[in-house]
Amino acid sequence: MIPFWKEHQEISAFLEQVQVEMKTCLYIDNNTISEALQNFSVQGGKMIRPALFFLFAGMGARQSQIDNLVKVASSFELLHLATLIHDDIIDDSPTRRNFPTLQNLLGKDTAVYAGDFVYTVYFQLLAETMNGTQLLSANAKSMKKILMGELIQKDQSFVVNVTVYNYLRAISGKTAELLSMSCCQGAYFGGFDETEQKIAKRIGRNIGLAFQIYDDILNFSVELNNEKPILTDVQQGIFTLPLLLARDKAPEKILPYMQQAENLSLNDLYRLADLVKSTGGLHGAMNIAERLTNKALSDIQQLPEGQNKKILAKATKKLLKRAY
Amino acid sequence: MIPFWKEHQEISAFLEQVQVEMKTCLYIDNNTISEALQNFSVQGGKMIRPALFFLFAGMGARQSQIDNLVKVASSFELLHLATLIHDDIIDDSPTRRNFPTLQNLLGKDTAVYAGDFVYTVYFQLLAETMNGTQLLSANAKSMKKILMGELIQKDQSFVVNVTVYNYLRAISGKTAELLSMSCCQGAYFGGFDETEQKIAKRIGRNIGLAFQIYDDILNFSVELNNEKPILTDVQQGIFTLPLLLARDKAPEKILPYMQQAENLSLNDLYRLADLVKSTGGLHGAMNIAERLTNKALSDIQQLPEGQNKKILAKATKKLLKRAY
Repeated sequence: MIPFWKEHQEISAFLEQVQVEMKTCLYIDNNTISEALQNFSVQGGKMIRPALFFLFAGMGARQSQIDNLVKVASSFELLHLATLIHDDIIDDSPTRRNFPTLQNLLGKDTAVYAGDFVYTVYFQLLAETMNGTQLLSANAKSMKKILMGELIQKDQSFVVNVTVYNYLRAISGKTAELLSMSCCQGAYFGGFDETEQKIAKRIGRNIGLAFQIYDDILNFSVELNNEKPILTDVQQGIFTLPLLLARDKAPEKILPYMQQAENLSLNDLYRLADLVKSTGGLHGAMNIAERLTNKALSDIQQLPEGQNKKILAKATKKLLKRAY
Repeated sequence: MIPFWKEHQEISAFLEQVQVEMKTCLYIDNNTISEALQNFSVQGGKMIRPALFFLFAGMGARQSQIDNLVKVASSFELLHLATLIHDDIIDDSPTRRNFPTLQNLLGKDTAVYAGDFVYTVYFQLLAETMNGTQLLSANAKSMKKILMGELIQKDQSFVVNVTVYNYLRAISGKTAELLSMSCCQGAYFGGFDETEQKIAKRIGRNIGLAFQIYDDILNFSVELNNEKPILTDVQQGIFTLPLLLARDKAPEKILPYMQQAENLSLNDLYRLADLVKSTGGLHGAMNIAERLTNKALSDIQQLPEGQNKKILAKATKKLLKRAY
């Protein structure tokens, strides 16, 4: 049972089927690797992508349709999983969501191939569920955008004059694309018309952008005792929205920290976090995230009436109004 | 112009189109990464996979068909390229085919994502060329087998009692699968019937196995002044056929080296190479490779008469009868 969705039994039941499907697909004739991958696939996440997909595609669908939807939803979660496995290698993270990362369990080398293997499982599920539909190319393009987002973010790491536009472009690919795809393709499978599919796409995109911005705000929120790591982005040269807004307001205060990003002590980082707050960087980022959230909520209002719509609005608020 | 195919103008012309297609697909809005990827895609290889594909699919085809075949052939070469990029990260290789590896040029982190990006381009090309055909699932399954081969080989590294069967299973996935796929899908696009497609598949598989075994023999061939690195496999704990056959004949001589694989000096490695030769490991591996080559050649004889068949037989001999 995934805590985030516990109030919604139909969604919870669907997500449990997605977990079973993912575990089946990740079976490989090697116990250590298979178990590590299977556990990693179901550990701790909110499964936002399959849930959003289902909210558009499947509430109230028959079981015969559900089986197919489970596969599509699993493919999206697996694509996400593959990027996480490689992200953890690049960040050298020992843990994710309080569990050991695959690199930590299996070593870097096996983790690189394990991530590749998960991409192949994603592809296999698409070949099973979307062969002959226009969605196949859409998925290929989305996957390309996601990886371009990762490449761009990596390429602009430690670049002190990276712009807000660069940042938004990177997170559009890295995070928003897959959420956008989950909503849009959910709408397709749910029989929505093309205009509604476009609205769904925009909803996913805005939820994705807001979600990533809140995540980046959390990385600067030292007062909160939260489960996410704090102040790690700057050290890795990933300059996110709160910092960029602070830099644009008070470059003389912020730039020296950015220029020394790799060598900042924990005390430096705390001082920088204070500065990002006092110069209005956090506040500015929150404003932008709220505007994106409100856009998503107003788009949700345009959808046909129904139970799904209510849950979608509620979940969006819950997801994007975490306490700061 | 690719030296290996210089006698065959039609193949050379096709491979040049494949190179152009790959470069186009690997364009990304970042000069450094784009150029590194584009150069890496065309550096030094024999382009065996697209060439085998073309030998079955396209000799004598019209230009309108050729354009599609170029895309399919490019997708196979790109899948191969993606695995090479990640292999080089895992092996920490500074060079491949005498050119710097992507990790060397761009750093590990960008190289991980760059490999992932190449997988997405492969997938995009398949979505363009195979949507609605049964080949899509076949490709997904093959990609899965290739990655399983890599995972299995990695998992059995430094395992001193790895069997010849384990070895063959790993190289079946890692190397033979993609060559088998290139031939079989070439036959499909070339209008061969199902029986012939199966023969093509077997030809590709046996060429692939023999090719990998010869490659592994080369790694032990210290007398030859060849362009490939020597004695690197053992150090990385990759125990290949010549070593396994030597171990099975004279375990008391070979096992001590295998148990210390990580710590062998260059002198130890030279002594081991001598032992692998004197105990018949090299000879035994060559026998097996020759048997596989002969199987491929006799299968080629079953194909319909034509120019392609002659070139295929000639190329197989040239590829697999390198001097030892």
